[in-house]
Amino acid sequence: MNISEFVEQSLGNWRSLRSVHHLAFSYLEEVNSEIEITGLNLGDVQVINLCEQHNIDPSLAISPFKMSWEGESDWDQKEQLNGSTVLVPIPNENNLCEGRLLRDQGYAETMPAIAQYQIKDDGTFLLITKYDRASAEEKIWFVSPKLRFRVSMIKTSDGKGVTTASFSSEIRI
Amino acid sequence: MNISEFVEQSLGNWRSLRSVHHLAFSYLEEVNSEIEITGLNLGDVQVINLCEQHNIDPSLAISPFKMSWEGESDWDQKEQLNGSTVLVPIPNENNLCEGRLLRDQGYAETMPAIAQYQIKDDGTFLLITKYDRASAEEKIWFVSPKLRFRVSMIKTSDGKGVTTASFSSEIRI
Repeated sequence: MNISEFVEQSLGNWRSLRSVHHLAFSYLEEVNSEIEITGLNLGDVQVINLCEQHNIDPSLAISPFKMSWEGESDWDQKEQLNGSTVLVPIPNENNLCEGRLLRDQGYAETMPAIAQYQIKDDGTFLLITKYDRASAEEKIWFVSPKLRFRVSMIKTSDGKGVTTASFSSEIRI
Repeated sequence: MNISEFVEQSLGNWRSLRSVHHLAFSYLEEVNSEIEITGLNLGDVQVINLCEQHNIDPSLAISPFKMSWEGESDWDQKEQLNGSTVLVPIPNENNLCEGRLLRDQGYAETMPAIAQYQIKDDGTFLLITKYDRASAEEKIWFVSPKLRFRVSMIKTSDGKGVTTASFSSEIRI
């Protein structure tokens, strides 16, 4: 599977159940959400802007997409869990299975981020994002075209402590 | 990583937080437990009995171990979540990274089972167990020597429907 195929498989609407394990205090948070993933054109202004923001030639982009979510947590009902982000894969030269993933809003911090992605032989999509004070590692894989799993963890920036681990099961609506 | 190294890394006591996603009705169950994994001798009567029960030469066994757990679910407080099982890896000839795993009590049904295991290049341990009416697939990987993740799913026996998915974060005590 390459990045285009992975994005293609991901398009659509998903009902997501996410369990967040706050490891330090053994606490479980439950997040229910709906996720919409839509393809964007390579010429889309959002795609071009994001590339230029990172000084990357927009012609290197492939299969850009937009992810929107709307959800609620059992932990803090007041927390705002709606949002959307534009994601732009920039594959390495001659290798669609590895590269960078630009996004206009990070996962652990609300700022633009460049992540490194890799797609393994078994189709698992790996994503590593380094922030100032933390890094996030994510594994996503399809169990079937209608079901995908996502395991994420947030590490302290020295890479030693894992503060949060989460598991999402995402079912195509 | 081979099966002996994997078992070696697993020995000890673990505090496990397990989130069970009952996919059909989008319900989350939380299980807190303590798991103890101890090595067994190749000459242990439990190991030899389990091999003989499956008509397997006990001299093919490697790194047998015992897993005990004690836990409680937020779903059904009365449910019995204590138990223990003997596990005996039988690697394929000339390949410690693939083979069979015997156990005296299955995961999804309480009967003896033979599972197929495989250890991937990235150290992920894969386990597939086929039962009469279902199959179970499990991925276990170490994030660090003190933290491991486990993702399991139960499929219907035709392999199509996934009824249950679960994620455990296991922290060494």
